[in-house]
Amino acid sequence: MDLAPLIRNVPDFPKPGIQFKDITTLLKNARAFQYVIDTWKCRYLEQNIQAIVGADARGFIFGGALAYAMHLPFIPVRKRGKLPAKTINGNFELEYGVDSVEIHVDALAPGQRVVLIDDLLATGGTMAATAALVKSLGAEIVEVSFLIELTALKGREKLAGLPVHSFITFEE
Amino acid sequence: MDLAPLIRNVPDFPKPGIQFKDITTLLKNARAFQYVIDTWKCRYLEQNIQAIVGADARGFIFGGALAYAMHLPFIPVRKRGKLPAKTINGNFELEYGVDSVEIHVDALAPGQRVVLIDDLLATGGTMAATAALVKSLGAEIVEVSFLIELTALKGREKLAGLPVHSFITFEE
Repeated sequence: MDLAPLIRNVPDFPKPGIQFKDITTLLKNARAFQYVIDTWKCRYLEQNIQAIVGADARGFIFGGALAYAMHLPFIPVRKRGKLPAKTINGNFELEYGVDSVEIHVDALAPGQRVVLIDDLLATGGTMAATAALVKSLGAEIVEVSFLIELTALKGREKLAGLPVHSFITFEE
Repeated sequence: MDLAPLIRNVPDFPKPGIQFKDITTLLKNARAFQYVIDTWKCRYLEQNIQAIVGADARGFIFGGALAYAMHLPFIPVRKRGKLPAKTINGNFELEYGVDSVEIHVDALAPGQRVVLIDDLLATGGTMAATAALVKSLGAEIVEVSFLIELTALKGREKLAGLPVHSFITFEE
């Protein structure tokens, strides 16, 4: 299924010069949403995955659906200050500044095999910080997977050493 | 299935006196997460639902999974400034201040039958604003449903005229 035409390009959002990739047009298409989740499910079905980790906030949509589809736990990684119990956190540089992500210290067990899901790989900063948190809890990252990858931003370089997958690539 | 024991109570988060209901302990339990989504699915299966609307951010986890389970479009309602294309927005009072939610103007069609999903009904402000946006696009709200309802905060009063459902009720 050709997914790229279902992503709406919004120029100059959130600031001039940025070509924002809008996933809501794909989510509105039930067949496409189903296809994405089922493709992920088939990709990981024989991999003995034990939890799906999703990144705040759009990663929750895809990660939550995939966890449901695979009958797995869903583990949210959130922006700083959103998770209520004891957390560990890590800083990262964004395209537009600096931010921080957190995970509950009891979210994952050592050796647990997980897949990390987000909608978009841009510079890779958020996912690199997320992966570092997951590793520091001792979990094993089987793959990091994105709906969209912006290849010109070289996010894969920041995720060196991790298996990375994406459905759709755009130059920028 | 008794879900209440799977919700972790975190006292004094995000500020003193608040008993925060942590849903991550339920999401970590794959069987409970499956049960919640499947119960929603069975509840709406014969209702000719045409889209699931989920609230930013925890509503994305449940709403995304439910949309997938029902083979329906998923429509995100977000905090102000997050949706890239043309939106309408509405203000509301939070327990901790004032905020605003937005929906894309092309997200729903007049007459479309939808269910609104969020994790928690507290004062009802966010969902009242969300429902107003959905109605202003002409969609028909079949039900508003929450995983958790804090009954002492009387959120149902703010949602007067809408069918409201919740899985778990806590006094506070």
